[in-house]
Amino acid sequence: MHISELDTPALLIDLDIMERNLQRAARYAAEHNLRLRPHTKTHKIPELARRQIKLGAVGVTVAKTTEAEVMLAAEPPDILVAYPVVGRRKVERLIEVARRVPVTVSLDNETAARSISEAAAEAGLRVQTLAEMDVGLGRVGVAPGELPALGRLIAALPGLELKGIAFYAGHIKKLDEKGFEQIEQLAETVERAVADFRSAGLPVEVVSGGSTPTLYQSHRIPAMNEIRPGTYIFNDRNCVACGCATWRDCAASILVTVVSTARGNRMIVDGGSKTFFSDGLATGADPYFGRLIEAPEARFVKMNEEHGYVDLEDAAARFHVGDRVRIIPNHICVAVNLHEKVYGVRDGQVVEEWTVAGRGKLQ
Amino acid sequence: MHISELDTPALLIDLDIMERNLQRAARYAAEHNLRLRPHTKTHKIPELARRQIKLGAVGVTVAKTTEAEVMLAAEPPDILVAYPVVGRRKVERLIEVARRVPVTVSLDNETAARSISEAAAEAGLRVQTLAEMDVGLGRVGVAPGELPALGRLIAALPGLELKGIAFYAGHIKKLDEKGFEQIEQLAETVERAVADFRSAGLPVEVVSGGSTPTLYQSHRIPAMNEIRPGTYIFNDRNCVACGCATWRDCAASILVTVVSTARGNRMIVDGGSKTFFSDGLATGADPYFGRLIEAPEARFVKMNEEHGYVDLEDAAARFHVGDRVRIIPNHICVAVNLHEKVYGVRDGQVVEEWTVAGRGKLQ
Repeated sequence: MHISELDTPALLIDLDIMERNLQRAARYAAEHNLRLRPHTKTHKIPELARRQIKLGAVGVTVAKTTEAEVMLAAEPPDILVAYPVVGRRKVERLIEVARRVPVTVSLDNETAARSISEAAAEAGLRVQTLAEMDVGLGRVGVAPGELPALGRLIAALPGLELKGIAFYAGHIKKLDEKGFEQIEQLAETVERAVADFRSAGLPVEVVSGGSTPTLYQSHRIPAMNEIRPGTYIFNDRNCVACGCATWRDCAASILVTVVSTARGNRMIVDGGSKTFFSDGLATGADPYFGRLIEAPEARFVKMNEEHGYVDLEDAAARFHVGDRVRIIPNHICVAVNLHEKVYGVRDGQVVEEWTVAGRGKLQ
Repeated sequence: MHISELDTPALLIDLDIMERNLQRAARYAAEHNLRLRPHTKTHKIPELARRQIKLGAVGVTVAKTTEAEVMLAAEPPDILVAYPVVGRRKVERLIEVARRVPVTVSLDNETAARSISEAAAEAGLRVQTLAEMDVGLGRVGVAPGELPALGRLIAALPGLELKGIAFYAGHIKKLDEKGFEQIEQLAETVERAVADFRSAGLPVEVVSGGSTPTLYQSHRIPAMNEIRPGTYIFNDRNCVACGCATWRDCAASILVTVVSTARGNRMIVDGGSKTFFSDGLATGADPYFGRLIEAPEARFVKMNEEHGYVDLEDAAARFHVGDRVRIIPNHICVAVNLHEKVYGVRDGQVVEEWTVAGRGKLQ
């Protein structure tokens, strides 16, 4: 089927670009002896996780226990739940998944550690754990100085097997001078944390960090041996603003139809915030919502739920009602989660169709 | 089941409040001789559309043809697709729906009008149409002066039955002095448009407008005889900021669990932008993402995909890992669309469970 036969909006993946993105990351990880554990929250599609594993990923990362359930279909070597698993039902889900495949969780508090420990011990299982450290985002994770105490707590609990350290440098959003300084500081923080952990007699088999912005800078953080990028499979407008990808690396775009041109230089397309999501750029570089492949000078200035407002004042191209354009979204991870289906495209032909099996898996 | 047994995040609907909201709107519409045609994009749940119809709604409104397909399950008297239906596949869907139930579409251009006309004529059907006028939002709709020409075009096409005028006053976001002035201007614009339409010998059986912010001001726009509010069924933080609802009218909240308190006065809950959506307040009144029912002074300052950052500096309440709080989102229409299920609650008990059947119906 040609893409012109798809109803819109439709989320398209350029398979040549996606495969290049996957291969590049796999090659980089192999060259630098890094365990690549892709975060599957970006695509939420077991078939794509399967391809990542085939290219050498050591396992997958998920945020939620329901996502872990979905990712069992990819038959991963193991699953990291990079999220504090808190609450009876979630711990039950975690244990059910752990019966099928080795599971690791990252933890930053005693409540979570104890409840997983009890459930694992009762089930006669061992859940691998990473002690989570905050490296600047101020989200989850204890301060680096408190990490050995957290490690000792985990190590002493039955049913848990401490494997090392986890962190997420989500505060590094741009590869500019400041970004490189932040990476240097991060390298020092991680090195110190690893040394402190080792001094305390704690294991550092796994030192897991990484994100898409810092993906190809991972070798600058020598104490880290595992990386968990997600967005790199598709890339998006954030990645280009960050400096970690170019437009030629953006595999995902959303095909929309022009539905109204009643307002002069402004056109309305049939996708708004329920199609693209309403995240601005993480760097705040501009206030727009996507890049039109067919008219890069056009500005995607505003959205309502089902309407996208495109300002064509600075664009050479002109469009009519019924024309179609492809738009690269700001943030692909949240956009994919809005779509039931994703279409893999090669040379204008739809050659794959995937259901976003993890869509809305929030628990 | 008590709500404490639900896994989080979970979208809760307080049924007493929802029923009061529905009854109030039904009563108002009856009192003022207004046809109430609720926009179902807010809930996307056929069972709730069914209740709206039972309370006197003349039919339902949808934005997309796939939403129309979903709403057939509510057996509505008729369906208004308040969106320019453009593209072969969408017109096919529209005709399929029109075989089952009377369908109306709002239109602002010749391309859409001709393609629906041809398909309807070929199918031996009549699709009712409203000529869409822009009243200040600058989205879809022709300028008021061009409306009679659009009406004549539609009236001359086979397969289409022109019924009147549609508009959407989405630019009125707050019921302050400016908002009331805007309503007054709107009343004049609509009155003039109706007079012009009538002078041109065109039908004005239906004059359809309305939104939740202007819902209870509809009697100030005497020439309008149909209203299409959506959000009023639940209300949200936007509605309170607008002045069209109070906190006691907010039926929807999202139950989340505290998963980390590692950072002093800040706590992390297990719902972020994939649970709440990232829309700010339409009025721009503050930069926060929701209101904690258990701690109204807390500030929901930031989100990542699965993490909500709550600043407790100004809050009296303190929370521990594992505690649960309910948060009223900024914009309930986009939040509901992220959830597979919605739970109807009375006195702390889950007494209804609905699947969001229209979730992700984008086409």
